[in-house]
Amino acid sequence: MPFTVKALQKTGPDQPFRVAEIERRDPRADDVVIDIRAAGICHSDIHTIRNEWGQAHFPLTVGHEIAGVVSAVGEAVTDWKVGDRVGVGCMVDSCGECEQCRAGQEQDCLNGNVGTYNSQDVDGSITQGGYAQKVVVSERFVCRIPDALDFDIAAPLLCAGITTYAPLARWGAGPGRKVAVLGLGGLGHMGVQIAAAQGADVTVLSRSLKKEQLAIDLGAARMLSTSEDGFFADHRGEFDLILNTISADVPLEKYLSLLKPHGVMAVVGLPPSAQPLHFRSIIGGAKVIAGSNIGGIAETQEMLDFCAEHGFGAQIETVGIDEVDATYDRVVDGEVYFRAVIDTSTFEGAPVAV
Amino acid sequence: MPFTVKALQKTGPDQPFRVAEIERRDPRADDVVIDIRAAGICHSDIHTIRNEWGQAHFPLTVGHEIAGVVSAVGEAVTDWKVGDRVGVGCMVDSCGECEQCRAGQEQDCLNGNVGTYNSQDVDGSITQGGYAQKVVVSERFVCRIPDALDFDIAAPLLCAGITTYAPLARWGAGPGRKVAVLGLGGLGHMGVQIAAAQGADVTVLSRSLKKEQLAIDLGAARMLSTSEDGFFADHRGEFDLILNTISADVPLEKYLSLLKPHGVMAVVGLPPSAQPLHFRSIIGGAKVIAGSNIGGIAETQEMLDFCAEHGFGAQIETVGIDEVDATYDRVVDGEVYFRAVIDTSTFEGAPVAV
Repeated sequence: MPFTVKALQKTGPDQPFRVAEIERRDPRADDVVIDIRAAGICHSDIHTIRNEWGQAHFPLTVGHEIAGVVSAVGEAVTDWKVGDRVGVGCMVDSCGECEQCRAGQEQDCLNGNVGTYNSQDVDGSITQGGYAQKVVVSERFVCRIPDALDFDIAAPLLCAGITTYAPLARWGAGPGRKVAVLGLGGLGHMGVQIAAAQGADVTVLSRSLKKEQLAIDLGAARMLSTSEDGFFADHRGEFDLILNTISADVPLEKYLSLLKPHGVMAVVGLPPSAQPLHFRSIIGGAKVIAGSNIGGIAETQEMLDFCAEHGFGAQIETVGIDEVDATYDRVVDGEVYFRAVIDTSTFEGAPVAV
Repeated sequence: MPFTVKALQKTGPDQPFRVAEIERRDPRADDVVIDIRAAGICHSDIHTIRNEWGQAHFPLTVGHEIAGVVSAVGEAVTDWKVGDRVGVGCMVDSCGECEQCRAGQEQDCLNGNVGTYNSQDVDGSITQGGYAQKVVVSERFVCRIPDALDFDIAAPLLCAGITTYAPLARWGAGPGRKVAVLGLGGLGHMGVQIAAAQGADVTVLSRSLKKEQLAIDLGAARMLSTSEDGFFADHRGEFDLILNTISADVPLEKYLSLLKPHGVMAVVGLPPSAQPLHFRSIIGGAKVIAGSNIGGIAETQEMLDFCAEHGFGAQIETVGIDEVDATYDRVVDGEVYFRAVIDTSTFEGAPVAV
């Protein structure tokens, strides 16, 4: 039987959040029902529900950084049991049969995966995200949250963690490697922690040094101001790998000049407009610009285990459901260090608007 | 003792070639003197001596696709002897001590390598290229030309061959891989032959199909016209690797859409202006844009051996020294299939202008 749960919902891009009762599907044989304990606020949630990226389907609940506990399982589920600590990220379904799914790259499913919210599900309905009390998900899209990670610091790993872990792993941010992280926000602060734990020598690059102590505390060896006189000349050819988390225009050619020969700029931030790329800035030194987009489910599990083993999660602040509107503005203003996470226990006792 | 040889020289960007006597240095202990038998005409020669790339130092002799026979060696040379069949490419010296040189990436020498022409040599002189009877080169920058390769079809391998071999090897153009080659000129025709010999399924992409039979003869499985209706939609997500040899503006986003997830566009052509790059076109599918610039000496040797083993060189036409001016125009007009090579025996008996 389908059932209802409380969720934060917007009815339009300029409307405030309200508590609504939304329907969750009758669990299928391979579904897992999760009691959500924490839901991270990702910048993508804000872009989506403010209609800054294409069309949002209202009324809509967002949230794709979900941590909680299994409360029920379908009859065919063998990998999960009630009480398991689990997480769900940006995807809730994919074909499972294409070349990409078989390679563990469900995010690149050739038949199109189903996003955790605002996405057309296999039954035609529009998926509703994790700012809610419960979610029902195919067992294939569930990851185990190690006991060492609290729900609130684990939730953002399901998006911000895997988004930075995958390119750092692919392009080898290990011992002896000099890694620069551009931007120290939700993604950047995970990139610094992960690259440092991988053994790299990590430098944070930003216009100002106001977060310098935070960068050091996260594991960076140093933070450098890119607005310093002569910065690009002084640090020319210094880095093996640059993780670019900035979602604004960047002087691409200048940043590429900071790479060693054969160096890689991994791009996970999405500026709104095209960036001019002179091929000369990658031909000389055979440099690489590499996009990256979350990661597959197996790699997400690997990342969660890696974070637990190295004893870190996201650096967060916890907010109640009535603080989410204000928190969105603070996230956009860059005032949250580094991730806000909704404590979903605050749904308890909250009156339902509809 | 320094000695003189006949060479083709220009005294200014708009001047015709003339036969001059130019000086070659007294061979040092580690030098090899090479009797040049064939010198390929690379598009870079034309750009350089027409002053289309920065400042050419006139009077100048160009040419960095050199094949010939060792005619003398310095007293410390042990790897080469008189009579050896050898080649020289785009570099004639480098520090030999930096991280890049030690890794066999002399083209990325951190102290700056010495180009084969129009480059400041270690003694302060400006290097003079291979459109000449002889050249004197450090033994470290000499490669062996296998007996299976004639001098004329081997010469272009020293630039066009390694320029395409290095990215195809780095990004894995082997069996089971679908490789597209953009553009079928001097670089493209080597890319097709090399990728096909590596076992890849090769497609040539060009606006027109006028070179279709040539492409098939070179080893391509097919040639496709990119100006066909619906081309980009029909071939979306088809290729593992695109070798982009075009030195003009390209609709980057459209070509990136032809790549599979995790696919790579290797860039060896240098358009004059910046290309707009939307990061969304590489973030979705975690795609890669990779520059590449010739290759190291050891890899150049590997490429020569690979071509000999697979029984191919460049597809060329041979020209005499009095045909080079006209040939430049034909190269620029795309009328040479696929490389023109100067037969340096035509220096014999030619009167010296200065």
